Amino acid sequence: MSTTAPHAVAGVDASFDPHTGLQRGSVKHTSPSMVDRVLLRAVNAAPLLAATAPAVRARWLAAVADALSVHQEELAVLGDEETGLGLPRLRGEIAGAGQSLLFYASVAVEGSYLAASMDVVSDTVTLARWNVPVGPVAVFGASNFPFGFGVFGHDVASALAAGCPVIVKAHPAHPRLSVKVASIARDALRAAGAPEGTYDCVTGFNAGLQLVDSLAVKTISFTGSQRGGMALRDRAAARGVPVFAEMGTINPAFVTSAAAESPAAAENIAAGFVASFTLGAGQFCTKPGLIFVPAGSGMFDAVARLVGEVAPAPLLTAGIEAGFTSGIAELSAVAGVMVAAPSDDGDGYAAAAHVFRVALADLMPGSRLLEECFGPVALVCEYDYAGEVMDVLAGLQGSLAASVFTGGPDDSETATVVARMLPNVGRVTLNAWPTGVANTWSQQHGGPWPATSRPEATSVGGGALARFVRPVALQNPDLQTLPVFLATENPWKIPCRIDGVLLLPVPSSFAPKDRS
Amino acid sequence: MSTTAPHAVAGVDASFDPHTGLQRGSVKHTSPSMVDRVLLRAVNAAPLLAATAPAVRARWLAAVADALSVHQEELAVLGDEETGLGLPRLRGEIAGAGQSLLFYASVAVEGSYLAASMDVVSDTVTLARWNVPVGPVAVFGASNFPFGFGVFGHDVASALAAGCPVIVKAHPAHPRLSVKVASIARDALRAAGAPEGTYDCVTGFNAGLQLVDSLAVKTISFTGSQRGGMALRDRAAARGVPVFAEMGTINPAFVTSAAAESPAAAENIAAGFVASFTLGAGQFCTKPGLIFVPAGSGMFDAVARLVGEVAPAPLLTAGIEAGFTSGIAELSAVAGVMVAAPSDDGDGYAAAAHVFRVALADLMPGSRLLEECFGPVALVCEYDYAGEVMDVLAGLQGSLAASVFTGGPDDSETATVVARMLPNVGRVTLNAWPTGVANTWSQQHGGPWPATSRPEATSVGGGALARFVRPVALQNPDLQTLPVFLATENPWKIPCRIDGVLLLPVPSSFAPKDRS
Repeated sequence: MSTTAPHAVAGVDASFDPHTGLQRGSVKHTSPSMVDRVLLRAVNAAPLLAATAPAVRARWLAAVADALSVHQEELAVLGDEETGLGLPRLRGEIAGAGQSLLFYASVAVEGSYLAASMDVVSDTVTLARWNVPVGPVAVFGASNFPFGFGVFGHDVASALAAGCPVIVKAHPAHPRLSVKVASIARDALRAAGAPEGTYDCVTGFNAGLQLVDSLAVKTISFTGSQRGGMALRDRAAARGVPVFAEMGTINPAFVTSAAAESPAAAENIAAGFVASFTLGAGQFCTKPGLIFVPAGSGMFDAVARLVGEVAPAPLLTAGIEAGFTSGIAELSAVAGVMVAAPSDDGDGYAAAAHVFRVALADLMPGSRLLEECFGPVALVCEYDYAGEVMDVLAGLQGSLAASVFTGGPDDSETATVVARMLPNVGRVTLNAWPTGVANTWSQQHGGPWPATSRPEATSVGGGALARFVRPVALQNPDLQTLPVFLATENPWKIPCRIDGVLLLPVPSSFAPKDRS
Repeated sequence: MSTTAPHAVAGVDASFDPHTGLQRGSVKHTSPSMVDRVLLRAVNAAPLLAATAPAVRARWLAAVADALSVHQEELAVLGDEETGLGLPRLRGEIAGAGQSLLFYASVAVEGSYLAASMDVVSDTVTLARWNVPVGPVAVFGASNFPFGFGVFGHDVASALAAGCPVIVKAHPAHPRLSVKVASIARDALRAAGAPEGTYDCVTGFNAGLQLVDSLAVKTISFTGSQRGGMALRDRAAARGVPVFAEMGTINPAFVTSAAAESPAAAENIAAGFVASFTLGAGQFCTKPGLIFVPAGSGMFDAVARLVGEVAPAPLLTAGIEAGFTSGIAELSAVAGVMVAAPSDDGDGYAAAAHVFRVALADLMPGSRLLEECFGPVALVCEYDYAGEVMDVLAGLQGSLAASVFTGGPDDSETATVVARMLPNVGRVTLNAWPTGVANTWSQQHGGPWPATSRPEATSVGGGALARFVRPVALQNPDLQTLPVFLATENPWKIPCRIDGVLLLPVPSSFAPKDRS
């Protein structure tokens, strides 16, 4: 029973309310024969989607965004019943998901993701190269972002934008919400003219395994724990299918001595830190889990005091609550000194915020202190001079993000700290917390192992589509074998590289932002 | 002894002449402590290389190309002593390697590989994103292309072009050539001003393992057998380092009925097929290993007759000769009908060309017939009508390349066959054999598993650098933390995406081809 939810019932995902811990319904698992049908539909849809113009898929995504907006309040209420994340956060997350769908639609229409290219190499050799959608994609969404990284979030939207059918597995932490969102999305896609098999949702652990093992699935995307991501990757490795797994990391932060020079500035950073690591009950993949502060800045005391003022908030599931409790015990065993907020109120999965003071000498490679503990907990490490931290920074595991707080543009420590952090992370924020992930071309949400299993990839931003395409070349093509954008006068108005020279089209018209 | 070369001696790579099978020298393995020193030098070189302008690294590559050219004859002679591939082929391969070095230099200077991007997202959020070199790269070259995919071939050149230090492992099939080429390249790089640690070569199986296991190595590139590639990938998976392994595949070819309608055309295709699959003694990763021909076209008889005229040619190593012999036995057990050229002359590792006639019904998933057999052997499958082959084509494992021979632009079968092949391959050639791989922006040399372990990647062409970079984002950067091409007025003249809009620079001046 140790790996299953309390009151687990065979054949269903039971839905629990984190506010109370009580069950509020359940969702039946998808049968193996139904998963087979879903896979067959996706296989049949794949060439249809690959042949559609990006502008057509853009309209499908816009239709889903509209539908999510129409159902926003109903979905937020249902989401709160299953995640306990609160209505304001969930309303905002739904709105953000809608924006991201429009953003990925615009990235598809812009067309750089197709990497269209043609060269006359010699009298006898002409080569065309472009990106094709890989085919059916299986998405395993996250527990902590039921919309942003859920059954119709960044992964699903960017895969569809790239022209791949998607089969998503409902997360057992919010099964009723998953099937509801999937149903709304399927209806919207159908009404917008998307072919059957464009998008489906399955439920249950075994249905997920069936997706991972199916030859029909060409790429897998996962957001969740290191343990889950690595198990998925290892299973998929047997048939060589690429897995993009985004996993939990420590996300270090560093405060330079100049940044904490004034007591007001130090207090301000301490407050931002506590707000960031307890945001969403500390259940962000970008949660800053470890901060280096100048000794004598009073920052540890400030953090400890502010943590004491944080109200307990419910964790997502009983399993995550249990993991948090044992994680705190593991950290205590190493770190010793701990400050906790007033004990939780005992209702549901509520957890109190915790902070540990750790010594630099304890942050050696392999230490439990350097691994993520999911939930409202963070470590504070005081340093005497910045130089003594540099080797520790350089030796950290890969993280999604890192933060540096500086004394301003003239702070001579900034460049050194950033240079030490960049080789191990996907994104560095200056004088900002990493928990906000803006939806834009220049976003990078990824990083070296174990932040992700594909350090060249991102799950947010203009680069997100690249996970779902692969290049093909056609040597000595004739017109009937070339894609429309290389065979004719660039009807999709996309960038093309001709004989090595990148050429830009007249800008196309579908864009959420007017850039004229 | 079964996994080692004949007369294996501990601590050295013995060099054998494939023409005679006799030893002609040996090369000492690199000691563990020396490998450590090499790794440390690469780690120290990494930030220096990352900070150099692409135009500077382009000059380093040009210097190596010059040096290879100066030593062309000496290297061809030494190469023939260890590979038996013959002087004309090796001279050509050296010239091609030199051209590829200049090509990757031009790709680096063009700058698209940096994917520079910056967005003002809001009043409080600015994001910059660009690609950074991953750091030290370990390259495991191929037995069959001692220059093209050897100690200074496509992998090494594209990694250096992308700004990564490279440590290459000498191939045991040509150890004396490997250390000679590496020494010439190191001297040229040093004279051109490249920092110590930019490029090194180590020798011996254990030195290779030490590279795979080292935390200093950030990406691994391998060209060789499926068995070797998968072992490498699995070992590297433990620490999550990306492995690009390019492996051996069947590379199917298809002749439409219209293509073989006239006896002269059928004979011409048969002759091209035999020439292609016996080129370099059948030791090309793009060797067409299976061809579908119309029944009644006389093509099998033509192929069988022409195979009988092929002179035996030496295989690269005793191990490859043994693998070829056992591979032929395995294929015989399934396929039965076999035609072989006159038996080999017994000298060295000479092998006679073989062809098998196979039945469509035998080409089921999992059959030995569908796996590569390295060496001069291929399968011919006759079909009654094209439609009966389509499911077999769709069910083939991933391949690097595939070929279609057509009756011309009006051949109605072409589009269907290409559509069935593309999902499983990296490149399709029309009316051309796949064994020539042109060095150009639109090349794709890769493909879905098991063709490679990274289907989104290529080891030849403008995309080859992408294997050796990864994106990073900097949120709210200040000038001292931005790379020079985003901090100032685009001094490297590279494409940049600003607020989502791709902008082209004034073309830069370093280019092997004048495109003005």
